[in-house]
Amino acid sequence: MSDSVNVPVEALHAYGVEALVTTGMTYSDACIVADKLVLADSWGTFTHGNKLLGGYLKRLEAGGTDPLGQAQVASEGPAWTIVDGGNAMGQIGCDFAMRKAIELADTAGVAYVGVRNTNHFGAAGVYPTMAAEANMIGIAMANDIPSVCAPGSRQAIMGTNPLAYAIPAGSHPPILLDIATSTVAGGKVYAATQRGETIPGDWVIDSDGRPTTDGSLYPLNAALAPMTGHKGYGIALLHEHLAGVLTGASIGWQVLNWIFDDQTKPTGHGAAFIVINPSAMSPLAKFHERVDGLIDEIHAAPTADGVESVLVPGEMEWQRRKIALAKGIELPPDVTAKLRKLDKRLGLKPDWLT
Amino acid sequence: MSDSVNVPVEALHAYGVEALVTTGMTYSDACIVADKLVLADSWGTFTHGNKLLGGYLKRLEAGGTDPLGQAQVASEGPAWTIVDGGNAMGQIGCDFAMRKAIELADTAGVAYVGVRNTNHFGAAGVYPTMAAEANMIGIAMANDIPSVCAPGSRQAIMGTNPLAYAIPAGSHPPILLDIATSTVAGGKVYAATQRGETIPGDWVIDSDGRPTTDGSLYPLNAALAPMTGHKGYGIALLHEHLAGVLTGASIGWQVLNWIFDDQTKPTGHGAAFIVINPSAMSPLAKFHERVDGLIDEIHAAPTADGVESVLVPGEMEWQRRKIALAKGIELPPDVTAKLRKLDKRLGLKPDWLT
Repeated sequence: MSDSVNVPVEALHAYGVEALVTTGMTYSDACIVADKLVLADSWGTFTHGNKLLGGYLKRLEAGGTDPLGQAQVASEGPAWTIVDGGNAMGQIGCDFAMRKAIELADTAGVAYVGVRNTNHFGAAGVYPTMAAEANMIGIAMANDIPSVCAPGSRQAIMGTNPLAYAIPAGSHPPILLDIATSTVAGGKVYAATQRGETIPGDWVIDSDGRPTTDGSLYPLNAALAPMTGHKGYGIALLHEHLAGVLTGASIGWQVLNWIFDDQTKPTGHGAAFIVINPSAMSPLAKFHERVDGLIDEIHAAPTADGVESVLVPGEMEWQRRKIALAKGIELPPDVTAKLRKLDKRLGLKPDWLT
Repeated sequence: MSDSVNVPVEALHAYGVEALVTTGMTYSDACIVADKLVLADSWGTFTHGNKLLGGYLKRLEAGGTDPLGQAQVASEGPAWTIVDGGNAMGQIGCDFAMRKAIELADTAGVAYVGVRNTNHFGAAGVYPTMAAEANMIGIAMANDIPSVCAPGSRQAIMGTNPLAYAIPAGSHPPILLDIATSTVAGGKVYAATQRGETIPGDWVIDSDGRPTTDGSLYPLNAALAPMTGHKGYGIALLHEHLAGVLTGASIGWQVLNWIFDDQTKPTGHGAAFIVINPSAMSPLAKFHERVDGLIDEIHAAPTADGVESVLVPGEMEWQRRKIALAKGIELPPDVTAKLRKLDKRLGLKPDWLT
């Protein structure tokens, strides 16, 4: 077993870049990917940070993801773009797409940018954060290989098709939500099974289409349950259309699992971004003031016993990031174990990991 | 007690128009409102159809809603508009806004239209349906007076802030979702209480911030629970921003309850619409084919015992509408009771209601 390790964000970033360029990826592309992995880790979203680095490298080395792939505009209009992700890493195609959306929304006020021929894009929240940094509202969606049931089905119908958004505030950090459209992520089911625990009845559906508390059935003989049944299924289906159907990406079972499926073949993921530019519509200061006012109203609301304050989405993440920037990121044992395993192969031996 | 009544859609529409014009509303505005109420009833969404007519009339007569209010453009850009709903009925301001969004998306490919100074807009799904009829993807959002908790709060923080979308298909009817961001609508809690039943533990939060199975506490001493906790809360907060913060509408507790609050004052609701035009991005036939293909894949998926077919959102609603158009709408007793009560006052005495 590994133990947790403290690492400065710069050192973790440098390690990610060094690891990625071993696949032939350019330094600047590696920086884009490392930026996003470190951002997720600094939020405490360790499931979607550098824990994924080893898996990403496997695909890059096997050729399923192209280390030299370049995103480009496939077609465009006054307020929209369809991006071909060039089968580069998801972070490359989606960073390109979000930059494009911000650029378009700067003049048009709103923009839709869809991406096809891309890959697992990591933590969905990193893209809307780019919009919030530009003082715009950003929304990110993606599709994925089905792992989530629909009401009445006995197998997975939709991917976990995430939703993330960020809204810039004035005196507060941006509001930031990043969720899967399933009741819980698959990782939570694995974790409960590893601890030998049963799971709540609304997490997983067995292969007869019935709720089960036996998490060990997942994923071979069970699928995740959609959040609040038809509601999560319906939202996932919207994402499937904006990220997949409209962009020309793979849809439903055409999408490959980036971890378990053939590592030499593109996964075919799609993604979609919507950006809305408040300053095109009214003075930015007024918008900031209204967002701050709403956050202050929420903070002042009466709380349940033992709760200090009602939070807005992202508050905990920005608090953790502040600590991470000042004192380093405390990588938990499951992450350090993955990174040590990866480094056994790469031999980069950073001092903080050994 | 009333019984259920069968009424042809045309007769129900004519009645709605006749009732609305008694308030001084123009014939054409009354038609817009009646269209939407009848559409909801024809879907079987009786909670948001003509059941609301009496309540709407009360506000119109008391002056809280302006029967002669006109929606107009407050500000606009290449792909966005902020609409002032003129404190007309929500259906008037939001019909205007959705038409605007469709018009903008026709050239820009995507559009955002926000509305302020509007009212309860009825069934959210009627607006995206307008986009689907124009072969575009439509999304509708709104805010409302808080009735839903956030994680850790002991009172309502957000409204039920609904989400609706519609996606045009080729050989299938449009995909159509219309949901509140709470676990269930308040109406379900009332209904269970009236039947003397306890409610599931994830529907309502008591005034100590704890889940309760006692539905009778709602709404005075309890609030609705957000769908899947932080997920529904987070989505509601996005809608609050797009429909309220960005448009200049009332926000949070500034919004008035259209039924229970002062009938002489505007409610201040906001709404937001996003339209994406697939035919700006690729041939429409190709888009239709891909949507149809995904629907067919879902229909062919293995089902749980007793389930004939996995459905896409809206299928049941379009099936009910088909029957309604052919054989009339079977209005349930709670709706006919409301309409009889209303007509006692108006004295219009349509033959199907007596």
